[in-house]
Amino acid sequence: MSKLPTVADIEAAAQRIAGQAIRTPLLYAHALSAQLDRHIWIKPEMLQRTGSFKFRGAFNKLSQIPQAKKPNGVVAWSSGNHAQGVAAAARILGIPATIVMPKDAPKIKIKGTRSQGADIIFFDRYTEDREEIGREFAARNSATIVPSYDDPDIIAGQGTIGLEIARDLAEAGQSPDEIILPCGGGGLSSGTGLAARASFPSVDLTLVEPEDFDDFGKSLRSGERETADVTKKSLCDALLTPTPGEMTYALNRALGANGLSVSDAEVARAMGAAFRDLKLVVEPGGAVPLAALLAGKIDARSRTLVLVLSGGNVDPQLFRDLLTES
Amino acid sequence: MSKLPTVADIEAAAQRIAGQAIRTPLLYAHALSAQLDRHIWIKPEMLQRTGSFKFRGAFNKLSQIPQAKKPNGVVAWSSGNHAQGVAAAARILGIPATIVMPKDAPKIKIKGTRSQGADIIFFDRYTEDREEIGREFAARNSATIVPSYDDPDIIAGQGTIGLEIARDLAEAGQSPDEIILPCGGGGLSSGTGLAARASFPSVDLTLVEPEDFDDFGKSLRSGERETADVTKKSLCDALLTPTPGEMTYALNRALGANGLSVSDAEVARAMGAAFRDLKLVVEPGGAVPLAALLAGKIDARSRTLVLVLSGGNVDPQLFRDLLTES
Repeated sequence: MSKLPTVADIEAAAQRIAGQAIRTPLLYAHALSAQLDRHIWIKPEMLQRTGSFKFRGAFNKLSQIPQAKKPNGVVAWSSGNHAQGVAAAARILGIPATIVMPKDAPKIKIKGTRSQGADIIFFDRYTEDREEIGREFAARNSATIVPSYDDPDIIAGQGTIGLEIARDLAEAGQSPDEIILPCGGGGLSSGTGLAARASFPSVDLTLVEPEDFDDFGKSLRSGERETADVTKKSLCDALLTPTPGEMTYALNRALGANGLSVSDAEVARAMGAAFRDLKLVVEPGGAVPLAALLAGKIDARSRTLVLVLSGGNVDPQLFRDLLTES
Repeated sequence: MSKLPTVADIEAAAQRIAGQAIRTPLLYAHALSAQLDRHIWIKPEMLQRTGSFKFRGAFNKLSQIPQAKKPNGVVAWSSGNHAQGVAAAARILGIPATIVMPKDAPKIKIKGTRSQGADIIFFDRYTEDREEIGREFAARNSATIVPSYDDPDIIAGQGTIGLEIARDLAEAGQSPDEIILPCGGGGLSSGTGLAARASFPSVDLTLVEPEDFDDFGKSLRSGERETADVTKKSLCDALLTPTPGEMTYALNRALGANGLSVSDAEVARAMGAAFRDLKLVVEPGGAVPLAALLAGKIDARSRTLVLVLSGGNVDPQLFRDLLTES
């Protein structure tokens, strides 16, 4: 395992991404706070460049590739948000990018990746191994692999969210009881948790996963890395990782993070609430913190909450269907 | 006509609303900017408390009502966004609020107004005069009338948007060629224009109205206040004012603002683009600046644009239908 990232690494990442990433706001959710009788703050990462937080880690990683290695390009495997983050960062830095994506990824994510000029290699999520395809491509082309979560630079980049939350809450004179984060591979949660804890030493960290993909929650409870059954289905295309990363698991465990999971129906309800009460387009995987809150799964003693809504790359057709049901 | 508001009045309004209104961000729209080869900045007022900019003016006005007058309450007439702004400000300040609303207002606006504890008097937009109903109520109850646009405190409150745009652009080292604003009664545009011009003396100001409700554009061209035919229909429920306000017309004329108009189909397309490329829920009346831009109606010489997207209170059913068409 590489050296785990530190708060200093996250601060360095913040310097690197400044001016390229959007400095997203921290929004007090007046309507939801009144409805639920809590103080609810939203970190809206669908407003980030490429429509999800993933640009942060990707740009932090790619901007450190030595000049001599740039012409060989980068390769990443991703369900679509990391893909767009890597593709956008690569284009800015003049690096060729190749992305290995599942052929059933949301159209909006495929289109977004293409529009950034990246090459795409499609694979079948149920029969092929994306990592094998990616590693083989990297070896053949001497390309740099850009991991989607288990990498100190990626984690440090995502961790800039935690710095921003801490700065904005301090400015508002607030201290959070709990930060609630979507969790796939754990890059967002471990980086953000690390940065936030530096400012708020006693804040609770809660990771939310889709039902049947709660490998992180299980691992945190059992004390060893568990694996989910990836043949299951979930609305949350961004969170279908089979197992926690080594580094992201070690960090989240050291931080004492807790895990819980939500159903597709709970996710759909949260997307409708975000539409009505936040005026934000949230993709299924980005909505899981709100889903957990609305489903009554967050400890009632936590009065001041921060919900990181991590992305908004959802196809119009699916969004319409879910809006009907909610 | 009362005394026209000044930039100093807008600065005083900014002090009054601080801590109550959301300090909305100014977002650089990377995807749209790349697509359209311009620099596009978005002021997302759907993220404002109550889902539209109207809270700014309402709170600025209501917070200046003398203590002795508060128990008599306030009354306002509104299609729904001013209604929610007034109702929320009234609740915060402990003032009873009564709102005269069209019975065909969007359900989300009626619900939002009720949820703030306001009383609602419904009227028929085609057969009844909302102003008469409101004035009669005010006289009977000695209530304070809260105009929706033609009032110096309302205009100054909405003008805080212009101060925020100017501050955020200056921080980013940018200067806008053109600011594009939705226009109903003209409170948003006249206040924002006034504040923005103080920082950017040569910025163009463009007001966008729905087709058939382009009374402001016509008035600015003819040099006198013209009236639209309010029996027509439009998706933009927030912008169906028949004639410019006296003050808002005088200010916009002095600022040299221009008017143009967009069709319902252009509005629907813009709402879809906001969904896909901005991840923001925009209501029809809030989307008209983007509609004008996407329809090719904005001067190609304007390279750096600010679009004020004024609200996001749209019923899910309508949003779904428009997302299908776009």
